[in-house]
Amino acid sequence: RINGDRLWDSLMEMAKIGPGVAGGNNRQTLTDADAEGRALFSRWCDEAGLSMSVDQMGTMFATRPGEDPDALPVYVGSHLDTQPTGGKYDGVLGVLGALEAVRTMNDLGIRTRHPIVVTNWANEEGARFAPAMLASGVFAGVHSLDYAYSRQDLEGLSYGDELARIGWKGEEEAGARKMHAYYELHIEQGPILEAEGREIGVVTHCQGLWWLEFTLTGREAHTGSTPMAMRVNAGLAAARIFEMVQEVAMAAQPNAVGGVGQMQFSPNSRNVLPGTVVFTVDIRTPDQAKLDRMRAEIESRAAAICADLGVGCSVEPVGHFDPVTFTPDLVSAVRNAAGKLGYSHMDIVSGAGHDACWAAKVAPTTMIMCPCVGGLSHNEAEEISKDWAAAGADVLCHAVLETAGI
Amino acid sequence: RINGDRLWDSLMEMAKIGPGVAGGNNRQTLTDADAEGRALFSRWCDEAGLSMSVDQMGTMFATRPGEDPDALPVYVGSHLDTQPTGGKYDGVLGVLGALEAVRTMNDLGIRTRHPIVVTNWANEEGARFAPAMLASGVFAGVHSLDYAYSRQDLEGLSYGDELARIGWKGEEEAGARKMHAYYELHIEQGPILEAEGREIGVVTHCQGLWWLEFTLTGREAHTGSTPMAMRVNAGLAAARIFEMVQEVAMAAQPNAVGGVGQMQFSPNSRNVLPGTVVFTVDIRTPDQAKLDRMRAEIESRAAAICADLGVGCSVEPVGHFDPVTFTPDLVSAVRNAAGKLGYSHMDIVSGAGHDACWAAKVAPTTMIMCPCVGGLSHNEAEEISKDWAAAGADVLCHAVLETAGI
Ligand SMILES: NC(=O)NCCC(=O)O
Ligand SMILES: NC(=O)NCCC(=O)O
Repeated sequence: RINGDRLWDSLMEMAKIGPGVAGGNNRQTLTDADAEGRALFSRWCDEAGLSMSVDQMGTMFATRPGEDPDALPVYVGSHLDTQPTGGKYDGVLGVLGALEAVRTMNDLGIRTRHPIVVTNWANEEGARFAPAMLASGVFAGVHSLDYAYSRQDLEGLSYGDELARIGWKGEEEAGARKMHAYYELHIEQGPILEAEGREIGVVTHCQGLWWLEFTLTGREAHTGSTPMAMRVNAGLAAARIFEMVQEVAMAAQPNAVGGVGQMQFSPNSRNVLPGTVVFTVDIRTPDQAKLDRMRAEIESRAAAICADLGVGCSVEPVGHFDPVTFTPDLVSAVRNAAGKLGYSHMDIVSGAGHDACWAAKVAPTTMIMCPCVGGLSHNEAEEISKDWAAAGADVLCHAVLETAGI
Repeated sequence: RINGDRLWDSLMEMAKIGPGVAGGNNRQTLTDADAEGRALFSRWCDEAGLSMSVDQMGTMFATRPGEDPDALPVYVGSHLDTQPTGGKYDGVLGVLGALEAVRTMNDLGIRTRHPIVVTNWANEEGARFAPAMLASGVFAGVHSLDYAYSRQDLEGLSYGDELARIGWKGEEEAGARKMHAYYELHIEQGPILEAEGREIGVVTHCQGLWWLEFTLTGREAHTGSTPMAMRVNAGLAAARIFEMVQEVAMAAQPNAVGGVGQMQFSPNSRNVLPGTVVFTVDIRTPDQAKLDRMRAEIESRAAAICADLGVGCSVEPVGHFDPVTFTPDLVSAVRNAAGKLGYSHMDIVSGAGHDACWAAKVAPTTMIMCPCVGGLSHNEAEEISKDWAAAGADVLCHAVLETAGI
């Protein structure tokens, strides 16, 4: 059994870095707070006897050697970056749970055949730089390094520049490593495990996603002296598209979602009809055909809404992954570990995207989930119990040991 | 006749300060560019022999003495501040047209009984600090100085602090002056004069306005893992309210408008359902009863939309003026001047709010309008012809002379 108290203490210690405004965290990727969180994690890895390497994307790999010099490592991790108003556990539990597993192996003097690499992927959230899971995407060959470096935040700062600025641009080629397997522990970020009263989610799949960035072009004009009939109102078109996305998602029930989290009016002045509105539609479902249908319907109905208002409409996909099926052997290892340890468990589909979704492209991969209170995540009030965290890390440790070989 | 070339040169000279990104201007109130524009205007006033005084709100009063020591001044002006993506003439024509009238009087050695005060009101646009026409509102006793100083921009900077920072916080008590009359020349910012082929709009009324700032409170949650039924979606409520405002405005036709220019999602992250959405509804009509009905309908329907989605809804009025009727004597003076000078003209209602709307509370007041191309304003592409500008300043000069007495 892992040490639940030590894991919890580490979670609370990390949560002090980049405090939010309501009890959670704002430790967005490539900020000073991110650098501070990385330094703390690095120190803990040192103390656990792990050797650190950082790749060109800023992903941190902390290695515990194995007994077989030829065996590929088992990777275990998640991410330490957060949303602007994020929780203390989203991602962090997966990194510090992996560290706790290794600390436990150290305590018990357990050696494994395969090395174990505790991993902190950079920019998982995608809040500051779209798309999400950017570093794992580069690792898996989905994105080029140039593409990733050129991604910009709302202030126009680029990923490459900001990574260099915080001092975590490594030398190691991104994606050069080969993996024996990849495990990721994460909070569910949804309501199912808590509602069903299960301690462990055995993650079999992850739903697919499209992020569609719309740029609507109307005509800036005075809100008072421009007659209704003369308006070319990009804001009204955005409002109609928002409602239409809701309709498409409701019609695609069950097992589908759609929404808009980011919306930018320009010039964003109370008495100017918006000339430009930029927003990102987020749609997801585990069903590939349904995902494609939703995207097509949204794009064609948005075009019609805009045409009706005389508004220009362009759409750029800024994030995408297909639905993922995790590796059956590893899924079984998780299910067996949960059973053996006596934790209540059920199979579950991940609603969120995770670095595991990209790792699955290049290695046998699976995930473990623990419940979160009220299904709430991407909210500073995100909460889990110490017991849930410990159960998740316990199952992670046992499944990893099974794959890494004792 | 005024000197149309000199007026145009001054307009072009002022437009070099705070250039926009598309040929217009970004000289928002209390920015460094505003300070630069004020300095240039101040120099021109010196050169014209006017004496400058600045009040506590940063409004600039440049006086040309009259012959009667007991006569109250005739005020003539508008504003030099612009929208973030504003035009070169909105407000500027009224200030520099007034200056041109005075320059012409100097050239011709015309003395008036009443002093003439060329006026540059601070923060007319309300783009950076709501409400619009803030300084003239304080002057007219509609707002307190404390209220005005405490208004904040989106960065949280206050009016009082920014006014001091740019060095234009004057000593003169705001509103202490008494006016014999107030005249304002302004571009129409709407399509009527151009469509009707008239050079001069004789402004008889100004429509009333409400700015209603909505703060919607939903629940931040993950866009992927939060089922549709669990969402408390403040963004969706905002979209529905936007559409509803459009409906209310369409149902109130003719002579009514409604729209939304400013919209802020928070935390504004692609994969977070917005927890808070703040936006401002702008509704206007010259009909007082209709204005009140529109406001009531919007507030009650917005409450119902939010209740249906479980979203919290609060509304704060951040801008308001009742419909205004301008002073018949001055309106006649404008109409007569246009007729005498041979300019085609028509009566018109101002669609936009102007400092004249507040001045009308404390003095006989009216306005003169000139056409603008395509009715476009609050857009960098805002355009007028040199002839329109000259005609407007000509009528202004003659009407002012009539009221100021030769
Ligand atoms: N787990 C998580 O919140 N990942 C961010 C990417 C996504 O939006 O799913
Ligand atoms: N004239 C003008 O654009 N004034 C700004 C205030 C308003 O929104 O009407």
